[in-house]
Amino acid sequence: MSAHAVEAGSTPLSLLEKAAKALSAFQGSRPRLTLTEVVHRSGLPRSSAHRILDQLVQLGWLEREGRDYRLGMRMLELGALASHHNRLRQAALPHLHALHESTGHLVHLTVLDGTEVVYLERIGRSDDASVPSRVGGRQPAYCTASGKAILAFGDAAQVDQVIRQGLRARTPRTLTRPEFFRSELRRARERGVAFDYEESYRGVFCVAAPLRGSGRAIAAVSVCGNGVHRELERIAPMVAGCTRLVWQSMFGPGRPPRGQEPEAAEPPVPRESMDDMMSWLRSSDWM
Amino acid sequence: MSAHAVEAGSTPLSLLEKAAKALSAFQGSRPRLTLTEVVHRSGLPRSSAHRILDQLVQLGWLEREGRDYRLGMRMLELGALASHHNRLRQAALPHLHALHESTGHLVHLTVLDGTEVVYLERIGRSDDASVPSRVGGRQPAYCTASGKAILAFGDAAQVDQVIRQGLRARTPRTLTRPEFFRSELRRARERGVAFDYEESYRGVFCVAAPLRGSGRAIAAVSVCGNGVHRELERIAPMVAGCTRLVWQSMFGPGRPPRGQEPEAAEPPVPRESMDDMMSWLRSSDWM
Repeated sequence: MSAHAVEAGSTPLSLLEKAAKALSAFQGSRPRLTLTEVVHRSGLPRSSAHRILDQLVQLGWLEREGRDYRLGMRMLELGALASHHNRLRQAALPHLHALHESTGHLVHLTVLDGTEVVYLERIGRSDDASVPSRVGGRQPAYCTASGKAILAFGDAAQVDQVIRQGLRARTPRTLTRPEFFRSELRRARERGVAFDYEESYRGVFCVAAPLRGSGRAIAAVSVCGNGVHRELERIAPMVAGCTRLVWQSMFGPGRPPRGQEPEAAEPPVPRESMDDMMSWLRSSDWM
Repeated sequence: MSAHAVEAGSTPLSLLEKAAKALSAFQGSRPRLTLTEVVHRSGLPRSSAHRILDQLVQLGWLEREGRDYRLGMRMLELGALASHHNRLRQAALPHLHALHESTGHLVHLTVLDGTEVVYLERIGRSDDASVPSRVGGRQPAYCTASGKAILAFGDAAQVDQVIRQGLRARTPRTLTRPEFFRSELRRARERGVAFDYEESYRGVFCVAAPLRGSGRAIAAVSVCGNGVHRELERIAPMVAGCTRLVWQSMFGPGRPPRGQEPEAAEPPVPRESMDDMMSWLRSSDWM
């Protein structure tokens, strides 16, 4: 939204909005940026960027090393606090650990933000580096099991938005055609879980279940791994069981979530015929 | 420093400094705060706090739930990015995991900030909740193994500052007398590791080694656990070995750290006589 303000040149940005833009410049793989790079990435005027970077260093939100800036300790602290105070993450944590211990694979907790999933938690062994996810990281929703699990039990408008933004091929297996993607979501609604067969990364397979009561999904839990496709069917009910436990620990077993859960329940979805399902599976590069 | 500006009433705070103060209000055990609570904790005028909280919600740095505010997703994302980009943490991570796997206990990576240690990483099992540490959390340096390990190989002025601030008894075992605390640091310098025998929390024992080359410590690695006192002597060399590996992975095996390591090497410390050591051990509540 602040980006729009800059482009339209309508409302001048507040110092806080400028600071947010400067900090967003660090959202890339390179941890260190020079003033020029921050100016380039943020679109802020150089003099303004310089003054703001100075202030951010003063606050400990950035650190300065020679001519380079990087995110600072204070930002790490505030973010860790945000994570610690995140109610969903706190409720899910013991169940995510249990799921990791019973499956032996990497476990994620994600929420949908626009057309992307954001990783709130990641529980894995030290050698789970083959799946390049990280807490606070983002992925497009359409090519992840988590994203599909949330979208399948979400708002139709969200699905439309995801499709409008385009289903870009990340791997040869990414579902890039809207009709296949919609069928995939219907299938996820029927099964209660969604899969990712190397649709984001080569070799990486995932299964995810939506976190929900009787209404829309508010998050998803997934289990991912390199070459775990043979295990996904066995793991799927464990992931679904995990989300039920998380839901219960947040809202209690029988109680309605009282304003926490989106009010509108999903209309029942007509079950796809098995023939249709098989035909699009064959026509895609799944089989 | 912004607190001083408010108290002295000298320089008016920038919007960014006010935002930092508003965010700092959330640094407690309670995740949700009302406007009144933020005003109370931050010292900001109510009208100003209201406007700033609104802006922080707009940026996603805070979230609003009815009349309550809590730290938001965007703050979690930025903080996770700061953690991900932290060079020390990245270099240490594989070695911390290895140390956790070989000891089976909770492993921490900490840095000193003023008179407190800040936890940059925490590697443990799901049931390590008995040690109430968290990433981004803080503890007074004087009563933690990590803090003592860094102070023992640090700046004398830092030690003076810690003592000036007071060594408050956290448990009956906290070293609260300056002369005992200084002896403890000398002992840590001799052994190359520092211990915490229930000085922060009842039942919690830790051993820490400083991360350093030939100069001052820049961080510490510790292993902690509930009732692990019998294992600390066995674990101590493993922790020291871990810090050597982390140092090497940051600066290479033989190479001097070239401006990364504080220049001034510690003057040699006279070895405490064993009699002195035993006498203060007896006079304290250690033995």
